[in-house]
Amino acid sequence: VSSAELRVLPVEGLPEIEQGDRLGELIAIRMDLEQGDVVVVSQKVVSKAEGRVVQVSEVKPSERAQELAAELGKDPAVVQLVLDESREVIRAERGVLICETRQGLVCANAGVDTSNVPRGSASLLPLDPDVSARQIRAQLMGSNGKAVAVVVSDSFGRAWRLGQCEVAVGCAGLRPMDDWRGRADAGGGKLTATAIAIADEAAAAADLVRDKASGVPAAIVRGLERQVTEDDGPGAASLRRPRAEDLFR
Amino acid sequence: VSSAELRVLPVEGLPEIEQGDRLGELIAIRMDLEQGDVVVVSQKVVSKAEGRVVQVSEVKPSERAQELAAELGKDPAVVQLVLDESREVIRAERGVLICETRQGLVCANAGVDTSNVPRGSASLLPLDPDVSARQIRAQLMGSNGKAVAVVVSDSFGRAWRLGQCEVAVGCAGLRPMDDWRGRADAGGGKLTATAIAIADEAAAAADLVRDKASGVPAAIVRGLERQVTEDDGPGAASLRRPRAEDLFR
Repeated sequence: VSSAELRVLPVEGLPEIEQGDRLGELIAIRMDLEQGDVVVVSQKVVSKAEGRVVQVSEVKPSERAQELAAELGKDPAVVQLVLDESREVIRAERGVLICETRQGLVCANAGVDTSNVPRGSASLLPLDPDVSARQIRAQLMGSNGKAVAVVVSDSFGRAWRLGQCEVAVGCAGLRPMDDWRGRADAGGGKLTATAIAIADEAAAAADLVRDKASGVPAAIVRGLERQVTEDDGPGAASLRRPRAEDLFR
Repeated sequence: VSSAELRVLPVEGLPEIEQGDRLGELIAIRMDLEQGDVVVVSQKVVSKAEGRVVQVSEVKPSERAQELAAELGKDPAVVQLVLDESREVIRAERGVLICETRQGLVCANAGVDTSNVPRGSASLLPLDPDVSARQIRAQLMGSNGKAVAVVVSDSFGRAWRLGQCEVAVGCAGLRPMDDWRGRADAGGGKLTATAIAIADEAAAAADLVRDKASGVPAAIVRGLERQVTEDDGPGAASLRRPRAEDLFR
């Protein structure tokens, strides 16, 4: 087996997460973490730990939310939550709401999600998923003293592809992008456009050991230590395409 | 270690690939493949094996290619190749050409790439990457008799995120999408919008053990056997969003 091997290990046996839970500590006591591990945690449990779950029945939909909901065939209160979480609605058609969230992420329903939360409630994205990642990292490193990285991940749809892929909405201690632009390729030629979104690929890899129904909300990606940094780094915010470079809104 | 663990192993020691090479056989003799392995092969070597590499100097740019090249600061002959590979140019601005390829993929430069090929040449996408995946799969299974799957992968940019992620442009023997819509979540609620692009996530996981300069053009994803099928299946074509459902062109 090559030393360059990567392993992805599910974090099993986590309890149902509640507001105030310290996810990093709960993970650290269940996993034998190694230096350079990347701990990928699902947004859903981060939001639960941070109290970012709301009762849909307590939301009063505005007129705009009611109109949009009627147009799209959605629950007006859920649409109100989406609007509250959005800086901008980018598309609202064919039953789909694509928004830029207050965090600057472009995704469906501004990250508002009614699955895997108690019936009648909805989860919202963490207020700042990079801060969430830093806090979980501090808990993990406080618990075991090893330099690990953290990714907070969520499933995003894609403009031109069906299905969703897990991406990094937050990260800490991981180089989010491996930028090869200007470096040499295998033949000594120049790589012109290769900047790999490592944090997103780590989120995707972690998703492969999870089962959407099994309640495995975290996984360890082992073998990426060359991308793990001492400081928290720029976070997943650095993977958001600036509006000025966006050709698609 | 959990039985649900995933491993990603680089395929090392492959020779420089030339037209006519049988990639499946070259991989099979280097790796001890197991039943249910997913073999992810970079588009670049598939294109080389299939002779989809052209000399840029032999391309005669049309007037339209010359105009576009001047506007975008690109090589007119490369732009001609991009146009030849495209069904439609979706965006041509700020130095970027986003196209729908003849294969129905939406990506930068219609997949035409001048890195990791001999200087002065460019690689084009395989004519039908799902067919490529089926051929490589047949070679692998002919060599070792084990049921494995194949993904042909390429790096794609994303509309709203920086950096590229590896996606499946072709696949065979792998369920490309794990569709949870209508199934129950962990709390017994209904999952409304979860369909996971397994083939894309497998491509992304494989990319994490590759080094863009090292010439490791393939990797094995082990632990996804539940997604590996007896027949070749619908291929990665089933992950292309149909034009009628596309909100972004």
